[in-house]
Amino acid sequence: MEKDNKKPKAILPKGFKDNIQEFIDLRNTVTETIRAVCQKFGFTELETSSIEYTDVLGKFLPDKDKPSGGVFSFQDDDDQWLSLRYDLTAPLARFVAQNYQDLVKPFKRFQSGIVWRNEKAGPGRYREFLQFDADVVGVQSTYIDAELCIMVSDIFKSLDLNFDQFQIKYSNREIWDNLFKELKITKQQEPLVLRAIDKKDRVGEEGIRNLLQKGRKDQSGDFMEGVGLDGSQTEQIINFIGNNNQSNQQLEEFKEYLSNYKNYPIKFDPSIVRGLDYYTGMVFEAELLLNVKNKKGEDVIFGSVAGGGRYDKLISRFGKEDVPATGISIGVDRLIVALQQQNLLSVNSSPLVVIANMENNQLSEYLKMADELRVSGIACEVSYGSKNLAKQLKYCDRKKANIVVIAGDSEIKDGVVSIKDLAAGKELSKKITEREEWKDSKAGQFEVKRKEFVSAIKNILDNQ
Amino acid sequence: MEKDNKKPKAILPKGFKDNIQEFIDLRNTVTETIRAVCQKFGFTELETSSIEYTDVLGKFLPDKDKPSGGVFSFQDDDDQWLSLRYDLTAPLARFVAQNYQDLVKPFKRFQSGIVWRNEKAGPGRYREFLQFDADVVGVQSTYIDAELCIMVSDIFKSLDLNFDQFQIKYSNREIWDNLFKELKITKQQEPLVLRAIDKKDRVGEEGIRNLLQKGRKDQSGDFMEGVGLDGSQTEQIINFIGNNNQSNQQLEEFKEYLSNYKNYPIKFDPSIVRGLDYYTGMVFEAELLLNVKNKKGEDVIFGSVAGGGRYDKLISRFGKEDVPATGISIGVDRLIVALQQQNLLSVNSSPLVVIANMENNQLSEYLKMADELRVSGIACEVSYGSKNLAKQLKYCDRKKANIVVIAGDSEIKDGVVSIKDLAAGKELSKKITEREEWKDSKAGQFEVKRKEFVSAIKNILDNQ
Repeated sequence: MEKDNKKPKAILPKGFKDNIQEFIDLRNTVTETIRAVCQKFGFTELETSSIEYTDVLGKFLPDKDKPSGGVFSFQDDDDQWLSLRYDLTAPLARFVAQNYQDLVKPFKRFQSGIVWRNEKAGPGRYREFLQFDADVVGVQSTYIDAELCIMVSDIFKSLDLNFDQFQIKYSNREIWDNLFKELKITKQQEPLVLRAIDKKDRVGEEGIRNLLQKGRKDQSGDFMEGVGLDGSQTEQIINFIGNNNQSNQQLEEFKEYLSNYKNYPIKFDPSIVRGLDYYTGMVFEAELLLNVKNKKGEDVIFGSVAGGGRYDKLISRFGKEDVPATGISIGVDRLIVALQQQNLLSVNSSPLVVIANMENNQLSEYLKMADELRVSGIACEVSYGSKNLAKQLKYCDRKKANIVVIAGDSEIKDGVVSIKDLAAGKELSKKITEREEWKDSKAGQFEVKRKEFVSAIKNILDNQ
Repeated sequence: MEKDNKKPKAILPKGFKDNIQEFIDLRNTVTETIRAVCQKFGFTELETSSIEYTDVLGKFLPDKDKPSGGVFSFQDDDDQWLSLRYDLTAPLARFVAQNYQDLVKPFKRFQSGIVWRNEKAGPGRYREFLQFDADVVGVQSTYIDAELCIMVSDIFKSLDLNFDQFQIKYSNREIWDNLFKELKITKQQEPLVLRAIDKKDRVGEEGIRNLLQKGRKDQSGDFMEGVGLDGSQTEQIINFIGNNNQSNQQLEEFKEYLSNYKNYPIKFDPSIVRGLDYYTGMVFEAELLLNVKNKKGEDVIFGSVAGGGRYDKLISRFGKEDVPATGISIGVDRLIVALQQQNLLSVNSSPLVVIANMENNQLSEYLKMADELRVSGIACEVSYGSKNLAKQLKYCDRKKANIVVIAGDSEIKDGVVSIKDLAAGKELSKKITEREEWKDSKAGQFEVKRKEFVSAIKNILDNQ
């Protein structure tokens, strides 16, 4: 098939992975739970295209005719740049601007979708991963921001997390805007200051102080340039972070809504700013307080799994007037890792029956048995490979089959089949002395009439 | 936010689309049905990465260091070419070669996944669409090919299609290989001959005759070059297509399996060859016999929705020895179009209750009501926008809400709420004379005690 003789290597590019049934089942359990909670709050599903024009994603390099290196991009036939979506928010803004007249407003949508990041891959850092976003377009009141936080809490509750296992911290960008005005922080400095504050959990107060002034060398020795603020500006910002008594109208409205949910772990934290510069009002971040081991084996808090906020100016990028909008984005893959570490996720795999291939001339009979089982709702496969029973039992074991049906010529002639209960067999085989070989043992095996074999199998599966 | 002043356009590139709830629900119904049938046959799920090395997909242009234009490709940091997957078969072959030692064999997997084609878009022709593949790796016997055809039939049955609404046609590449040897068709000519035969349904016998010899001009005036066979070769090939009495060992084995399923619409058709050159043995194609209207309004047969076959040499591309493998690929999006045209698909959307916003100071009470409904499993949203009831009723109508709950200060003081059954209201409103305005009518509206409002709502929903 190959035009040249170089054989391709059977490997994946860095940062990509294959998912097998066990993971897919866990992930479906998690996304179905999130989906169900969103639907209970009146959200409907939307699935935007995976590919967008690069300028829609806002990912062109400033003053250059090329996309940012952070997105996977390619030129179309007409030379226009296309990119794989980087998040689910920019595509939503495009969708709303494109369909504004026809949309039922408020437009409340959720979306579960892969996003792609052309970034450096590392352990646990993939270049494609699943996000689950919920957004509301067209509601100005911050009641709806509060409702998003309640909804996220209900999502965590539905995933069997307790109120002491997570918290949602919120703040408001406007109080920062006012402070910036007061301190004469320039428009160029603003995003840098916000990004420095956003690093609080990682770098601590002294780290922020350095980042706001002359810069900071991190543990790996990399130097990050400082914003260049003076000492007074810096200290006022640091005091501001620690002051929980601030408020404005949006925060008051938000708190009014929350007064109904006093037991929910949702709290004001001025240091929550979110790194992205498109946020305009309320911002929030959800973190899991679960203890997990880091790479060095130390106990650490798991940390952020969701975040979001209000982005009232994102939709007007497309030339329309401002449209109030707010949303939350959940990192599903990270959430699964956390839930797995706490053994909070389990999936019941459906049982499987294997019909052993004992005689090639009995195919027709094996197929009939398989059909009868499937009609009764039981998953079943006929073994078409080796007639060696030991090999077939090994296959059943690796495939976690529950039952194997054994029927040779003589059994079929006598109108019976042997049923081997693999779970029971394993238990019994532990008691068998080593000299008796497992493959020869009849542990967990018994004969039933051919006519009754479906009900006998149902009986075993019901009791397993 | 924009670095320059050019505002992006809110549009999607050609060949891409957004999917809304109604479509997503239909698609989930279809894929869940297919998934369930595959699981009943002992298949497990696999999800390969969406991005692969271009050479893994076999999509490098011959003798060039560039990917084919048919795939979306980009260069990684290390200059290696990556591509979005074009189908689900090449990634499966890579996965099997990569994990061969650890795989439980036979490896029976299904996968539901988006594939991307950098091809010309047109009406109904998208550049990203959903495929559902089922494959078996490690079984030499064509019993398993026959089982795939039975499984596909069971999938169609589960989607409420009758045996006279679809058919599966099969053939075998080896009988063609033998004919090619006999007729001294060269290796270069073989794929061209196969592709000509594959066009049979579109171009007819005379069309094939032209394609095999001197070429053919199609309706659009485009000329397609001929293979250059002589008249005798051509006529022998055309006779071969019409001869249903051929056989070989693989076909005999395949038919032996099918003898158990005489009523299934599965039949031998030597003209089924499948265009791709990686097929090695059995090949099959499933078509829907449903009558649909084409663009000109003429009745036509819907045609192919699934196809596949054996590709015993695809995995050895990666430097390993040949591994027997066979699979089938279902075009889910096309299948949905067909099922929709026959009204065979329906989704029950879950009911929605809206709590109208009558008084801003009653938020807390509205939230409590919403909570009570959600705890009872009923989807509910509180309206945070306009206090204008007519506007809110219009929103309910567009969002297809079932019930709206109306509670102003006086009702709350009296311990009652008004429940408006929107479905019943619509029926009644048809009888109301035009002068009475819909928004003022109390059609379908009644008062219940606040304490009993959840059970009253449940009652209405149960009877809708």
